[in-house]
Amino acid sequence: MNTSYRLHFAPDNASLIIRLALEELAQPYETVLVHRQARAHKSPDYLRLNPQGLIPVLETPDGPLFETGAILLWLADRHRALAPQVGDPQRGAFLKWLFFTSNTVHTALRMNFYPDQYIGPDPNRQEELRHHMQKALSGHLSVLNTMAAEHPSWLGATQPSVLDFYLACLMRWMVLYPEGGSDWYDIGKWPLLREMAARLEACDSVQSAIHAEGLGATPFTAPQYARPPEGSAT
Amino acid sequence: MNTSYRLHFAPDNASLIIRLALEELAQPYETVLVHRQARAHKSPDYLRLNPQGLIPVLETPDGPLFETGAILLWLADRHRALAPQVGDPQRGAFLKWLFFTSNTVHTALRMNFYPDQYIGPDPNRQEELRHHMQKALSGHLSVLNTMAAEHPSWLGATQPSVLDFYLACLMRWMVLYPEGGSDWYDIGKWPLLREMAARLEACDSVQSAIHAEGLGATPFTAPQYARPPEGSAT
Repeated sequence: MNTSYRLHFAPDNASLIIRLALEELAQPYETVLVHRQARAHKSPDYLRLNPQGLIPVLETPDGPLFETGAILLWLADRHRALAPQVGDPQRGAFLKWLFFTSNTVHTALRMNFYPDQYIGPDPNRQEELRHHMQKALSGHLSVLNTMAAEHPSWLGATQPSVLDFYLACLMRWMVLYPEGGSDWYDIGKWPLLREMAARLEACDSVQSAIHAEGLGATPFTAPQYARPPEGSAT
Repeated sequence: MNTSYRLHFAPDNASLIIRLALEELAQPYETVLVHRQARAHKSPDYLRLNPQGLIPVLETPDGPLFETGAILLWLADRHRALAPQVGDPQRGAFLKWLFFTSNTVHTALRMNFYPDQYIGPDPNRQEELRHHMQKALSGHLSVLNTMAAEHPSWLGATQPSVLDFYLACLMRWMVLYPEGGSDWYDIGKWPLLREMAARLEACDSVQSAIHAEGLGATPFTAPQYARPPEGSAT
C-alpha cells in the first residue's frame, strides 16, 4: 500500500475532518493514535510536528501539515477534487467561506468547548463567554444555510466538498460538547445544512469513518457520543 | 486604467493588508472609503457584499471577496506571486501558517480589541480576556520568529510574501490598539520579525500605502497613529 500520508488522530477529534477528506479522495493513509489523556499531543515529539500541540497533524511528502483548513485545501489542490481549483470562477467564494469556517465558526466552537483558555477558571465568566459564542454560532449557521440556498458547487451540492465535511463535523460537535450544553442548537433551523448532513451520511467515506471511530449511524443529523474501537473520544 | 479590483477600505483597517498586496502585485484598483463612524459597513448595500459586515471587501471579476486570508491567497494564486504556488513543496507549510495567522493570531487580536463582542460589557471580564489574549499573542510571535529562523521563502525572505504583509500589519495594530494597552508588546523579543518589518518599510508598495493612509515613516517597526488624508482610522 502506498502510504504517503500519516494522520495523527484522536477519535472524534478535528482529525476526523481530515480522515473524511482522505477517505473521499480514496487516498491510502496510515493512522497514529494520539493518546490525549496522556497528553501525548504536548510531548516533544509531537511538538516537533506541530508547535501548537494540536490535533490533527498530517505527515505528507512535503512535511508535516497542521491547521484543519490548510490541510483540507492542500489535499483538494493536490488531488484536484472536492473544491473549486485555482482559476475556477468559484474559487474565491469557496476560499472566503473556508476561511470564515476556520477562523470564525471553528474558533467560536473552540471557545465554547475550552472557555478556560480564553477567560480563566471562573465558571460565571466561562458561562458568559459560552453564551456569546453559542449566539454567534447560531448566527453563523443561518448565514451558511443562506449560502447553501444559492446552490454553489462547494456547499451542500451533490458532490461533497471539503467544506461540507468540515461543517458537518463542526455541527456534530456543537450537539455533543460541552455535554449538556447544546440547548441552543436546533438543526431544524438550518434545513439545507441538514440536507447536506444527511447526504454525507450516505457516502462510503463517512461509513468508513463511522466504522473507524465508532461514530454511530447518524453522526451528523442525530449525533451520539463516539464509542471508538481504539483510543477515547474524551 | 484597468480597474478589475475595487477595495472597500477604512484607513489603517484590515483593508490595509489587501492594499499592500495589490500594490506589491502592481495591480490597479479603485478604492471605496467605508465610513465606519456612520456604520456604513452594517448598511444593507455593504451587507450584500459581506454578510458579516466586516472590512475589507475586494470586488473582483469573480464577485465580492472577503476574509483577509482568503483574499490574499486568491490574489497570490491569480497573479502567481507573493506565495508558493500549488505544486510547490513549500505550499503546505505556507498554508498552515497562513491559516494559523488568520484563525489564531488575527482572532486573538480581534478579541484584544473588541472584548465586548466575546464577553459582554463588564470591564473586569474584558480585562481578563485581554490578559489571556496578550499572553497568547506574545507566544504566537515567538513561534513565528522561530519559523522565520528556518528561512522559508514565504516568511521574512528577501522577496516579501502576502504572509509578511499580513503579519507586519497585525504587529502594527498590536502596538496601537487598544490605546495604552500594549505594555506587553516588545518587538525586540522577535528580532527576525523586526527585520522582516524593517525590510518591508523599504518597499515601494509600503511607501504607497503610507502615503494613501497616512501611516507615518515607520509603520511596522515603530508605529504611530494614522493621520489619513481621507476618512478616519478610528
